[in-house]
Amino acid sequence: MTSLSEKLGKGIPVRMDMKNDTWTVVQALRHARHDWMNHIQLIKGYISLGKIEEAERAIENIIIQAHQESHLCNLRLPMFAELLLTFNWEARSFNLEYEVFNEEVKAHISDEALTSWCAALFRTLEQYIKLYADNHLYLLVDKTEEGLRFFFEFSGIITDSKTLSQEVEELLRDSLFQRSQMHLISSGELQFEVIASLGS
Amino acid sequence: MTSLSEKLGKGIPVRMDMKNDTWTVVQALRHARHDWMNHIQLIKGYISLGKIEEAERAIENIIIQAHQESHLCNLRLPMFAELLLTFNWEARSFNLEYEVFNEEVKAHISDEALTSWCAALFRTLEQYIKLYADNHLYLLVDKTEEGLRFFFEFSGIITDSKTLSQEVEELLRDSLFQRSQMHLISSGELQFEVIASLGS
Repeated sequence: MTSLSEKLGKGIPVRMDMKNDTWTVVQALRHARHDWMNHIQLIKGYISLGKIEEAERAIENIIIQAHQESHLCNLRLPMFAELLLTFNWEARSFNLEYEVFNEEVKAHISDEALTSWCAALFRTLEQYIKLYADNHLYLLVDKTEEGLRFFFEFSGIITDSKTLSQEVEELLRDSLFQRSQMHLISSGELQFEVIASLGS
Repeated sequence: MTSLSEKLGKGIPVRMDMKNDTWTVVQALRHARHDWMNHIQLIKGYISLGKIEEAERAIENIIIQAHQESHLCNLRLPMFAELLLTFNWEARSFNLEYEVFNEEVKAHISDEALTSWCAALFRTLEQYIKLYADNHLYLLVDKTEEGLRFFFEFSGIITDSKTLSQEVEELLRDSLFQRSQMHLISSGELQFEVIASLGS
């Protein structure tokens, strides 16, 4: 069985593979502009069709999403925030969506270690899911009595749930977290959570 | 009387604690998000008041502005683009606006040198204009027969036009440019241009 550090040690270094280092401000702004323009074009389309209620709903959705981005950035885990904010801008086998409640908490966890762990998790997931399928990973970050909880929920097509399960279980044993739990795995779903203790 | 666009367009100020050279991706995205959200709130405001034509006009303006940002980024002068894209996110004595035509040209100029020159120009300007006045700098980048032209037009309150004129004249003599020209300077206006030769 390979440990997380062994896994991270082979092949391309984590930080390269995350591609976080290679994002420049101008590139990130270009992608963000592209996303925002898609939203604006959608609103424009609804208005031009006289569908004012749909336009208003689209606006509400954008506002909610922007609030989630703000919450993510308020966690004071900037590398982790960058990984999530930029994730969907690269060619990926799954789409990432997240929600962050209780953003005013400070988790007692290394930003860099959490980000590396998360990047390793995403890479693992990408190995065992079907390319071009409607794969989706939802991440909920919220505060529980035990600490800051990261709840992951994947839906899509898992090609090898047995091996994926083993590899995720291994990732869940990382000492970064106070507690972790696998909730369910099937050929189309995967749910698990990790909890980081809170800082004082 | 303040108009709706003035009320909604200005929005809440963001914390202005970042210097240009220290922008991280997450910080830049936060500022961009703030700007986009101001636009979205403006559109939302118009729609909720039943002012559909105004909403459509606001959308068109956003699209035009986003196109200008794209054009700027297409100049293949990434440092220069970053300076301009992030300029208004810091506490400044003037507001910067730009338009870029003919973005498909490649100027024969060092990105770094142009960016330093431009930053020095902005600093010089800030020294001789009135704080908190309605100061505005418009920059037009277009292609002329001679090369890539950067046309600057300032309007606002200049506190010492004589010294500013001398200092700008000195900046215009920089060997970076193929040609430069001071067009006019008064207590409320300043116009000049520099031209960089085109790459082959």
